[in-house]
Amino acid sequence: MLEYLESLPLVDHHCHGVLDRDLGRAEFEESLTEAETAGPPGASMFDTQVGFALRRWCPPVLDLEAHAEPEAYLARRAELGAAEVNRRFLAAAGLAALCVDTGYAPRSILGPDALGRLAGAAAHEIVRLEAVAERVAADGTAATGFADEVRGRVAARGAVGAKSIAAYRAGLELSGARPSDAEVAAAAGRLMRAAEAGGTQPRVCDEVLHRFLVWCAVDAGLPVQFHVGYGDVDADLRRGDPLLLIGLLRAMDPVPAMLLHNYPFHRHAGYLAQVLPNVYVDAGLATHNLGHRAPALIAELLELAPFGKVLYSSDAFGLAELYHLGALLFRHGLAGFLAGGVEDGAWTSRDAERVGGMIASGNARRVYGL
Amino acid sequence: MLEYLESLPLVDHHCHGVLDRDLGRAEFEESLTEAETAGPPGASMFDTQVGFALRRWCPPVLDLEAHAEPEAYLARRAELGAAEVNRRFLAAAGLAALCVDTGYAPRSILGPDALGRLAGAAAHEIVRLEAVAERVAADGTAATGFADEVRGRVAARGAVGAKSIAAYRAGLELSGARPSDAEVAAAAGRLMRAAEAGGTQPRVCDEVLHRFLVWCAVDAGLPVQFHVGYGDVDADLRRGDPLLLIGLLRAMDPVPAMLLHNYPFHRHAGYLAQVLPNVYVDAGLATHNLGHRAPALIAELLELAPFGKVLYSSDAFGLAELYHLGALLFRHGLAGFLAGGVEDGAWTSRDAERVGGMIASGNARRVYGL
Amino acid sequence: MLEYLESLPLVDHHCHGVLDRDLGRAEFEESLTEAETAGPPGASMFDTQVGFALRRWCPPVLDLEAHAEPEAYLARRAELGAAEVNRRFLAAAGLAALCVDTGYAPRSILGPDALGRLAGAAAHEIVRLEAVAERVAADGTAATGFADEVRGRVAARGAVGAKSIAAYRAGLELSGARPSDAEVAAAAGRLMRAAEAGGTQPRVCDEVLHRFLVWCAVDAGLPVQFHVGYGDVDADLRRGDPLLLIGLLRAMDPVPAMLLHNYPFHRHAGYLAQVLPNVYVDAGLATHNLGHRAPALIAELLELAPFGKVLYSSDAFGLAELYHLGALLFRHGLAGFLAGGVEDGAWTSRDAERVGGMIASGNARRVYGL
Repeated sequence: MLEYLESLPLVDHHCHGVLDRDLGRAEFEESLTEAETAGPPGASMFDTQVGFALRRWCPPVLDLEAHAEPEAYLARRAELGAAEVNRRFLAAAGLAALCVDTGYAPRSILGPDALGRLAGAAAHEIVRLEAVAERVAADGTAATGFADEVRGRVAARGAVGAKSIAAYRAGLELSGARPSDAEVAAAAGRLMRAAEAGGTQPRVCDEVLHRFLVWCAVDAGLPVQFHVGYGDVDADLRRGDPLLLIGLLRAMDPVPAMLLHNYPFHRHAGYLAQVLPNVYVDAGLATHNLGHRAPALIAELLELAPFGKVLYSSDAFGLAELYHLGALLFRHGLAGFLAGGVEDGAWTSRDAERVGGMIASGNARRVYGL
Repeated sequence: MLEYLESLPLVDHHCHGVLDRDLGRAEFEESLTEAETAGPPGASMFDTQVGFALRRWCPPVLDLEAHAEPEAYLARRAELGAAEVNRRFLAAAGLAALCVDTGYAPRSILGPDALGRLAGAAAHEIVRLEAVAERVAADGTAATGFADEVRGRVAARGAVGAKSIAAYRAGLELSGARPSDAEVAAAAGRLMRAAEAGGTQPRVCDEVLHRFLVWCAVDAGLPVQFHVGYGDVDADLRRGDPLLLIGLLRAMDPVPAMLLHNYPFHRHAGYLAQVLPNVYVDAGLATHNLGHRAPALIAELLELAPFGKVLYSSDAFGLAELYHLGALLFRHGLAGFLAGGVEDGAWTSRDAERVGGMIASGNARRVYGL
Repeated sequence: MLEYLESLPLVDHHCHGVLDRDLGRAEFEESLTEAETAGPPGASMFDTQVGFALRRWCPPVLDLEAHAEPEAYLARRAELGAAEVNRRFLAAAGLAALCVDTGYAPRSILGPDALGRLAGAAAHEIVRLEAVAERVAADGTAATGFADEVRGRVAARGAVGAKSIAAYRAGLELSGARPSDAEVAAAAGRLMRAAEAGGTQPRVCDEVLHRFLVWCAVDAGLPVQFHVGYGDVDADLRRGDPLLLIGLLRAMDPVPAMLLHNYPFHRHAGYLAQVLPNVYVDAGLATHNLGHRAPALIAELLELAPFGKVLYSSDAFGLAELYHLGALLFRHGLAGFLAGGVEDGAWTSRDAERVGGMIASGNARRVYGL
């Protein structure tokens, strides 16, 4: 089963750019997990599930033995240089297509085209809704024209999907009601006045605006990705439970809602994928962070979620290693899940291969129309 | 251990009627999970854990090979006809007794007597509290007489237990206080006026009334079953966490409270079963929906829940297959759990058999006085 | 790996005294779990995961065969007497050091010195913050002097850490803001007036005071232990989710916050340990209560928590057996986790031993400065 999955190119339906420059140890450790810093003395981020997974699987891609020590690994990484490292890991991921969230792109981050070239895969864009709104607000659009301008830019972007980061800002408790233009104009006015008063860039953090943005994507017929659950500490995890989103999920049917990451609420997400026709789920970000435990996560996600509604994503960001680790751990975990079922007689190997193909790429191709 | 559990007839302490008519594929898929519909194109409800469990275990009961394709299975099912299909699956479940929730009974649903005959088991009734209240309201009872009338009908029903669906309506955050007759009369008045104004049947969805109904059952000395957690999408899962119910669980002691289903809050339910003397738990509905993963659920439920407070239920509804799958997956999962402990030396086989007997039927017999 | 962990003395960073007197069966059962009572008829607390773990592992320490029946076990226990029983189990735990929470000490409970002598280990005190505040209030301190008096007593105690039981009282939703002296004085006044009016001992149950107490410990540079999740039924488990505490955890950085127990929110706790530099976690109390399932808990805790931020604690209270069971199940569970990774090639045995040493004692020594 693992060989079969290794033969299948994956569609990574949610990922980010990688850094196009060399990294010191502290910065590398900071990029390895969702921690704010490389950890207090005595608590290296290499001593984590993802750290051990990296030391097991990544050194051979850089011509080292598995389980290389961190210093040796980072020395070899520096020797090869970021460009070569990125090339090797993106190629190793074995991707057919990538859907790149371009909404958070600090300096030195590669964009979709460059990622696609490195991966030898088709690259598509996922437009981050809040980034569009913040750009419109920063451009000095009048509050009354804000809604139309945002709608227009979202629809004109040519993206295959949209992404909401409401979970990081106002939380996922979004109502299902479509906000009126007057409500949006009022909220946009508040957004712009707050930025002006603070002398800062506009920052969307308002239930009305997050909701409005989802409706812009829905009206444009774009599948909407929602950050759910696990992420960095800016996300108040309490407000990232996908059960909070049920009203809006219902209201946006039949436009697909893609619940991303989901850990530790992945069973909640699986429930929603079963009971609501337009809900899809993945276990991105958590898969590589759980390392040797990723199979447990995948098995739990697949308890209630119909197999036709589960997708692969890496949610890789910054380190090219995460493209490789995400894909590898996903293939291993899913292969173990499917092969275990074959061994126990729970399903036939023919069905297992069919399900493997759906989750590896078929479901994503169908939902995004790739 | 599996042979031993297969030799033990089960008490299914919470189940429903099955449909007494033939079903097309769409209707069959809709009945297979808690989804609202048979799923969008590409996402068949057969491609789920319960779908694969059905294809593995049910075809042989209808003289087909395991892993039959859905179309072949449904064709054979139609050929045999609903009456024969129901007879075979109810018999295959290996039941000693059934406690049938009669509160939701659309057309063509078999009642307790018919189910008992098909299963060769004693059939008992679980009275659904909200249905009694809605009937009383529909009968035009005066609001001031509502409380007494409901109390009387609940007590006179001859049921072995009562069922609350507060989780589907106002949610499980019910206070522990017994509502006064004046509060109940006021709430009953609101219920009847709303139905009259809307020209609809009365529909209980009011914290006071749900709570009053639980007290009616408590006063009648009936164990009260609570829908908890997993169910169809009408239940706002956020409000179905059993931890919300702790005040009322405490207040109703020593009358037994039976927490049903519980997934994905089964660990919360296990905690309540340990710390509160009158709380009991099961994993109905989720057991067959999790299919090949049911053993993980059973093991998690049995982390904190005392083994003397865990019961079996199928929560089967509509498809007779679910009676068979629930019982089979429960026996397999519990057998694996108990045998694994014996193998590791965690308990003796004698203790394992004793615990198996308690969970299979002994605990239910004791609590319901069967 | 198990042999290696058995060779390592543990630091038990959160435990309590044991009873220095003989116990009857009912009292023994009540002490075995977090239940309020020994259970209704038919639901013995011996028929639980912890009960079976006790029957497997404890009888040999008292010269009986494993799996002794409860009556035989209790008879032998009575024959040996509490002093000998305590001596044997504390020694069997294999401890290097204990950090004893002295805040709840009913009659006949041994203190840190006696425990340390029995265990042959260094004993340290963890000061329970609410107990100090209640003592100050009971001493008739003026409300305006309350803050300084509490601060002084916490700092002067010579403890290696402090403990907050906010989860048992006002819940974990504590703001990150340091309360002003005026706020504290007002809250102290309410505390004392309530005690006076009720003729009772002062009982802290006020968000301002719990928060103030944490800041007293932070100002004294003491690591702060928080009761989180599982505990007896006095704790409203809904309010014991560590995600509720995120504001205060952030604000108290870099003083260490030690999240205790955590079950069933241990994945939430692991997340916090990863993303916040000053957060540490354990699985005390739950480890022995889960018995044969403890390995699953340990594996789940170690999904996101960096291995440099996980500690051992027993949370043993009352029964000396719990010191032995906690240590034994922890060593077995961690050994299985680490050895499984070695077998699968996830990490080397050298790394596994290093991680084992960190979790067994190294992390605790570093954080508490032992």
